[in-house]
Amino acid sequence: MRAARYYGKEDIRIENVEEQKCGAGQIRIAPAFVGICGTDLHEYLGGPSFIPVEPHPCTKETIPITLGHEFSGIVTELGPYVSSFYEGQRVVVQPTIYCGTCEACKAGVENVCYNGGFIGLSGGGGGLSDSVVVPEGAVLSLPENIPLDVGALVEPLSVAWHAISAAPLTPDAIVLVLGGGPIGLAIVQCLVALGTKKIIVSEVSGTRQRFARDFGAHHVFSPTKYDPVGLSKQLSRNIGPDIVFDCAGVPESITTACTAVKARGTVVNVAIWEKDVPFNPNMLVIRETKYTAVLGYQRKDVQAVIDHLAAGKLKPSKMITSTIQLEDLVECGIKALIHDKENQVKILVEVGGMSRVDSAVH
Amino acid sequence: MRAARYYGKEDIRIENVEEQKCGAGQIRIAPAFVGICGTDLHEYLGGPSFIPVEPHPCTKETIPITLGHEFSGIVTELGPYVSSFYEGQRVVVQPTIYCGTCEACKAGVENVCYNGGFIGLSGGGGGLSDSVVVPEGAVLSLPENIPLDVGALVEPLSVAWHAISAAPLTPDAIVLVLGGGPIGLAIVQCLVALGTKKIIVSEVSGTRQRFARDFGAHHVFSPTKYDPVGLSKQLSRNIGPDIVFDCAGVPESITTACTAVKARGTVVNVAIWEKDVPFNPNMLVIRETKYTAVLGYQRKDVQAVIDHLAAGKLKPSKMITSTIQLEDLVECGIKALIHDKENQVKILVEVGGMSRVDSAVH
Repeated sequence: MRAARYYGKEDIRIENVEEQKCGAGQIRIAPAFVGICGTDLHEYLGGPSFIPVEPHPCTKETIPITLGHEFSGIVTELGPYVSSFYEGQRVVVQPTIYCGTCEACKAGVENVCYNGGFIGLSGGGGGLSDSVVVPEGAVLSLPENIPLDVGALVEPLSVAWHAISAAPLTPDAIVLVLGGGPIGLAIVQCLVALGTKKIIVSEVSGTRQRFARDFGAHHVFSPTKYDPVGLSKQLSRNIGPDIVFDCAGVPESITTACTAVKARGTVVNVAIWEKDVPFNPNMLVIRETKYTAVLGYQRKDVQAVIDHLAAGKLKPSKMITSTIQLEDLVECGIKALIHDKENQVKILVEVGGMSRVDSAVH
Repeated sequence: MRAARYYGKEDIRIENVEEQKCGAGQIRIAPAFVGICGTDLHEYLGGPSFIPVEPHPCTKETIPITLGHEFSGIVTELGPYVSSFYEGQRVVVQPTIYCGTCEACKAGVENVCYNGGFIGLSGGGGGLSDSVVVPEGAVLSLPENIPLDVGALVEPLSVAWHAISAAPLTPDAIVLVLGGGPIGLAIVQCLVALGTKKIIVSEVSGTRQRFARDFGAHHVFSPTKYDPVGLSKQLSRNIGPDIVFDCAGVPESITTACTAVKARGTVVNVAIWEKDVPFNPNMLVIRETKYTAVLGYQRKDVQAVIDHLAAGKLKPSKMITSTIQLEDLVECGIKALIHDKENQVKILVEVGGMSRVDSAVH
């Protein structure tokens, strides 16, 4: 079967590999649509960082690793003892890999498992292939009224849902989102679905600004044209936003987040950082600000996103700016996201031509 | 009257100045004992930083500023309309200055007032003088069984009490304290008073290590001899402390705090920082750690400290390593703290020879 495998920095190859076996408690899925994630870009440009060069503690795998951790698909085989799913079922995968035995797992926060990882980054196959075998516990049913391409957006929306759960959100909260990339836009959509009355977005790109407005942000500005701290304070009863989500992850955004937020407010970092940044904790001291960070999601976040999609409260399909084929992954996918950031939000890879037979209609 | 006034970096002068007037709602206090604080040292070595060079929004004062914000004393005059105190009463001062009108004040968190400051740093007189006039609301009664010198420790203990209130402390929590200076030792004492069963202290100085043990820390080690992350994890069920207090405020301590703390644990920064430090938010991301910062205290913290002192649950007098006279402030106080850090914890300035007539006995 075909698989997109990561060998190292700027080295992703579409190869023919053997299918994984489908063992007890496992499910084989034919991936339908697979999102290309910012993490994939980081690995391509500067990795390997999350992708293991030593055997991963859970998967025991090392480079080359099959990519693709944001995906929907169709069940094609059930291993022994699997009873909750059926062949032909439309599903999405929660790619979290966890050991189940560390203290974080025992405490029910498997997303920060001390030995954890992700299907499609840490081994265990990936969505960017014709077939992937995953544990039954990683599979969630995709309701019939959610198209398979939208199913591939469940993962980034779950990141956003989980990030919001780390903040003391009330309907009256004033929220500043720094960065209108896929995660920033996903946060805007989830905030809207949760009834947030004032959402402010700071984003440089005009195209992404339009997306933010379309998805329901109430105030959108460019931090190159306006002082983001001053303007967001002005829009927030002159005291600053209650909550700031840093989805940009650059030295300017951490400073903006920590100085814009109101006294005793909360900054939630949703970004992954490439290197150290200059930081002065006094920014937090003088306002007793909380700075918290999130990683991934839990199953309850993924299910909440699916439920809100099924209920029509989340309508993210406009995030898909391009759909490409597996063979074009690097040239039309990864490189397009790197070089055409202005116009791209989420590029999906269609694997196996599943869209032609998908029962759900947009 | 005599007053120790700050003119700028390395320039503190004991001068004769006029007494403030005691107006409506104000109380005149003859300071008895005044602690020298780390903030005073920062101002002496590298300031002015907190001390205003432009008119302070509340006090309208600028340099020169009378110092001394950790003090006990005796009421010597009551302004009109003051009814809760009497002349001769033993008191301590909560030096927080706040505007009362900003959103932080309105929300009851006057310690992070947008225009705030401290008596003894921002104007309004200070403890390091023969007489100081403060608003009635800044004064708290010192019970008869608490000596006046111990009263001067109420302020640093309140910083510690407030810092602990920012953390999700349970009796079973395992707590790591980085730095055994006055605030670190105050935190150890407050944690002991609150029944914390495992307190770990990382401190370089042998003298301060002994203080930490004497005050009830269960494990004390030097970060120059042991890996603080590895050892504190080993002492914390191999998952890391539940809470870390950073009372050191150096690049090494922020990294230790953020990498030692358990998944979903809390780091509380109690330090004031002189400059930017290199920081990688990924340290917090991979464990979903909360990083929070505190400033000062609220009246409820100060009252809780007084109540615990009166009940004998806090016994901090050993923190006082030296008592000096006002004229010796710079040479025997500030310079001793800078050059003899190893052996000094808290140096008190005795103003007015009040100890000879204090009714409370150690």
